[in-house]
Amino acid sequence: MRSTRTSRFSSERCHNTTKSSSVSENAKMTSKSQRVDGEEERTSQTKNTIDFLSICGKLKQTKRTGWTKYKEITSRVESVADHSFRIALMAFVFGLQQEEDKEEKVLDVQKLVTMALVHDIAESIVGDITPHCGISKEEKNTLEVEAMEKLKETLGDVAGETIETLWLEYENGSSREARVVKELDKLEMLLQASEYENEYKDVDLTEFYSSCDGSFKTESGKRWVEEILRRRPVR
Amino acid sequence: MRSTRTSRFSSERCHNTTKSSSVSENAKMTSKSQRVDGEEERTSQTKNTIDFLSICGKLKQTKRTGWTKYKEITSRVESVADHSFRIALMAFVFGLQQEEDKEEKVLDVQKLVTMALVHDIAESIVGDITPHCGISKEEKNTLEVEAMEKLKETLGDVAGETIETLWLEYENGSSREARVVKELDKLEMLLQASEYENEYKDVDLTEFYSSCDGSFKTESGKRWVEEILRRRPVR
Repeated sequence: MRSTRTSRFSSERCHNTTKSSSVSENAKMTSKSQRVDGEEERTSQTKNTIDFLSICGKLKQTKRTGWTKYKEITSRVESVADHSFRIALMAFVFGLQQEEDKEEKVLDVQKLVTMALVHDIAESIVGDITPHCGISKEEKNTLEVEAMEKLKETLGDVAGETIETLWLEYENGSSREARVVKELDKLEMLLQASEYENEYKDVDLTEFYSSCDGSFKTESGKRWVEEILRRRPVR
Repeated sequence: MRSTRTSRFSSERCHNTTKSSSVSENAKMTSKSQRVDGEEERTSQTKNTIDFLSICGKLKQTKRTGWTKYKEITSRVESVADHSFRIALMAFVFGLQQEEDKEEKVLDVQKLVTMALVHDIAESIVGDITPHCGISKEEKNTLEVEAMEKLKETLGDVAGETIETLWLEYENGSSREARVVKELDKLEMLLQASEYENEYKDVDLTEFYSSCDGSFKTESGKRWVEEILRRRPVR
């Protein structure tokens, strides 16, 4: 009996050990395979991230088309990245000044800044299409939506989805932040226009101001554009 | 009695009315004067804001000095604003990917992005000073601190203070976010270096990679630099 019991015990132990060993080995293998999967996933995520950042980096060399027809400023035409930098900074200041006025704290500052940062990234694939490029508004929109979809897929994961969501929200003007960033997009352009006009006295960029008539609905937007207009050189 | 009471009542009412009227008039005057003050304050804040944004806009025309000595890429040297745009985008992606990994949610995404956005704004006044400009590290730091102080005073209010605080935190590397943005500053430069090397096959930018040896402490930073190095053209 003892022997049997021992044997059984032994067998049980053995069985348990085997089972335990098997679980442990399986666990090790799973863990190793998870590590490999996790590692592969991270490597793939890294590759996608750098691909995405490289595509968006093309905005450094993408000229803002609107200015290019003015031969006086050809050598100083800003890039889409230049414009995106300052509109993001404007969004940050706009958000901070709103926070100073306790009664009107209605905008999400992080959303404002990041939306401004990504609002033109589809142009890294399709370029800066303006109303003078011979492409209809609908066609431009289709091209940009496709480009954004490609960028989302390139980056992947939650990051890709978050950036696409922000971009679409901006495009559709479907939130307060989106409507503010749309105002800032025009304000950044007008500030740049007034700076070009002050630097190149023969250049008259009235068409840019005219294109923004009635665009400013926020109190800050109205005050900012008034100040920018005040800075235009007297002709 | 009645008359007296009425009279007293009347007098009280009168007194109250006078008092009330006087308070009301004072209130009106205060309110008007506050409105005038408030209006003046807003006008002044708007002027300061546009001044600040115009100074920072100079980063669009400020070349990143490091690349300028490579004559092959002279015509394609990026601006400090170009660099600032992509580092802010990198910071956003870095923050979002961290959020996907629930266990490591330690960084404030808004702080990461806005710190990246403003990390070079002092250069809008002092230019992009590199170790090859003949200016010591201490002197460069003094110049930039003074420039940042000027920018803070130009913008004023909470917004000016917030931006200066972020900039100083970055300069001193005094938070996790600051240390990450310092890594991103180098990663953005190396990604740009690898892109230039792939575009201009004769250009060898090894000195930029060497200057970053041992700079990457975060797991993502290490993976990103490995991927960037993998993209350098084979010589």
